[in-house]
Amino acid sequence: MDRDKILLTPGPLTTTLRTKLAMLRDWGSWDSQFNAVTAQLRSRLLEIVHAGKTHTVVPLQGSGTFAVEAAVATLVPRDGHVLVLDNGAYCKRAAKLTQLMGRRATVVEFDEAEAVSVSRLEAALAADASVTHVLVVHCETGTGVLNPLEALARACEKAGKGLIVDAMSTFGALPIDARTLRFDALVAASGKCLEGVPGMGFVVVREEALRRCAANSQSLSMDLHDQHAYMERTGQWRFTPPTHVVVALNEALAQYEAEGGQPARLARYSANCATLIGAMRDLGFEPFLREELQAPIIVTFHAPADPNYEFRRFYEMARDRGFILYPGKLTQLETFRVGCIGAIGPNEMRQAVEAVADVVRTIGLRRMGRAS
Amino acid sequence: MDRDKILLTPGPLTTTLRTKLAMLRDWGSWDSQFNAVTAQLRSRLLEIVHAGKTHTVVPLQGSGTFAVEAAVATLVPRDGHVLVLDNGAYCKRAAKLTQLMGRRATVVEFDEAEAVSVSRLEAALAADASVTHVLVVHCETGTGVLNPLEALARACEKAGKGLIVDAMSTFGALPIDARTLRFDALVAASGKCLEGVPGMGFVVVREEALRRCAANSQSLSMDLHDQHAYMERTGQWRFTPPTHVVVALNEALAQYEAEGGQPARLARYSANCATLIGAMRDLGFEPFLREELQAPIIVTFHAPADPNYEFRRFYEMARDRGFILYPGKLTQLETFRVGCIGAIGPNEMRQAVEAVADVVRTIGLRRMGRAS
Repeated sequence: MDRDKILLTPGPLTTTLRTKLAMLRDWGSWDSQFNAVTAQLRSRLLEIVHAGKTHTVVPLQGSGTFAVEAAVATLVPRDGHVLVLDNGAYCKRAAKLTQLMGRRATVVEFDEAEAVSVSRLEAALAADASVTHVLVVHCETGTGVLNPLEALARACEKAGKGLIVDAMSTFGALPIDARTLRFDALVAASGKCLEGVPGMGFVVVREEALRRCAANSQSLSMDLHDQHAYMERTGQWRFTPPTHVVVALNEALAQYEAEGGQPARLARYSANCATLIGAMRDLGFEPFLREELQAPIIVTFHAPADPNYEFRRFYEMARDRGFILYPGKLTQLETFRVGCIGAIGPNEMRQAVEAVADVVRTIGLRRMGRAS
Repeated sequence: MDRDKILLTPGPLTTTLRTKLAMLRDWGSWDSQFNAVTAQLRSRLLEIVHAGKTHTVVPLQGSGTFAVEAAVATLVPRDGHVLVLDNGAYCKRAAKLTQLMGRRATVVEFDEAEAVSVSRLEAALAADASVTHVLVVHCETGTGVLNPLEALARACEKAGKGLIVDAMSTFGALPIDARTLRFDALVAASGKCLEGVPGMGFVVVREEALRRCAANSQSLSMDLHDQHAYMERTGQWRFTPPTHVVVALNEALAQYEAEGGQPARLARYSANCATLIGAMRDLGFEPFLREELQAPIIVTFHAPADPNYEFRRFYEMARDRGFILYPGKLTQLETFRVGCIGAIGPNEMRQAVEAVADVVRTIGLRRMGRAS
């Protein structure tokens, strides 16, 4: 009765018991044993993107959005100019936080059903030399679309612009190689593809870029330069760290490495995604994205055209069967989302679709295709 | 061998196993079951300071400092002027974050060994009518000194100034009654006297004040007005909440209520503090503060004058015996600190001092009084 629900969301997600058990201890945040955990964690995160020679990892308390805001606040000078490539809700949020803190931001808009375009980035950079930084979301979780990070990074490098990547929902699952892909900052969080619990973000920052960033941030809490300097000097976090979250992430990373690291995680999530989409198609559900744009992270489905479909009821009935789905985030179309990430495999995805099938039968849904 | 150390620090601190066990589940942050936890948590926090009729609780991801910064960013208009009463390190930090975000701040400095003075506050307010808000730290954890919150609040109310209180290390332990003590914001965090795990802060905000605060904050993450509006509308946090930390705090609050609430917590911490100071005095250690200024939260002791005393060694030997002490935070004097808070009682305090006594004997310390 009281069995944990499987979370099919973009995070928080289902974690292993081993990860959660790591939280059954209290740690002194000033103690060398905890400092050793922080150091190991930072080094493990750096290794995932092969950035040991060029970058450093700055962890930050709070949600992933806090870390995105901190990356912009720290890396973009007060008179900087950020070009935001916008194909969804998380891009819009990044643009909003940039503007709110007083940095100049230009938003280049794309269709939510498409990846952002490298040629339009190149044109925008050619048209306005005042741009200092480009901000891009790797997988726009609002829809699940994968943006072409490598080509975007090449365009930024060629134009001499700093690149800030929101890799919240891809870090650890999709390949990102700092040796060949140049970025100033890559932002992610504990509770996503690394399968930790939520409560901290982190930014992989290019050391050469970070050195120039003292006093950029108007926020003390969000100043990654200050956080980094203090951590390098003392081994400690500047302000009270979420100790249990930190230790759980480190434990999750040990399991990540044992599983085979990024290639293994990508293989599992890809299998989850293929299993999900195949079985949902068999029920008549239509994915929102064209297949080649779909990241194996979260899948947006069109709401069924059937007049008896109502998301709240659909959601609650799936939850009663043990699976937490996720609402859509599109303004124009009714959709819902199903995550492929977390400590779950194709078995759980098949069980989830079985549960959805039972919900469909119970409600008596017949027209499963999208409303026209 | 692997028994948890007792944390005698200002947080993170020792929590009960029951509180930690609450973290062995994964929760969907969008789900109604988690929303119910958030709602119960907010209501419980509000009740602790008798603020149900006048205030609302806005939780925030991150450490306590994030919540202090958010309170200033949200409540103080961009052309506001904050008077900071400074008698220690946490006051200085609050002044720094206020200035960094571009708010005008005037710092009134006091001796770290003294409480801030109401008459000097009154004089400062009389001398400069442009002050809009006063910022005070209830217990300055840098030393452990208790500031006279009630009298300070009366002076602010009389002068018509908004009051922002950093009650990080007192909330839940010392009596604060919003029915008789007027404040705009009272800031605290999960991992202090409520004995949750670290990872979230919260601000008790006067609703009438909050209504005027839309668009004050230049930080999206720190905008408590936006966080509150979203939470009231949806029951959810704006950005991913630290679900496990939230649930652990709610579990800690159930135990807090069962123990007898604030009076019971104060009685336990007072007994801890008295036990600690008495036994440490018996060993020859001298508290830094005069007795009447000492909050029962954390005690600063002078480092012994003995030339063989060295904090690092002293700390490590105490840790080897099972107790985590805390370094001093005074620039002029060598001190160390011992916390009285957490899921511990006088037994643990006596055991801690026994361990310190053994360290003193092992090192061979003889001159225990302060260096002159």
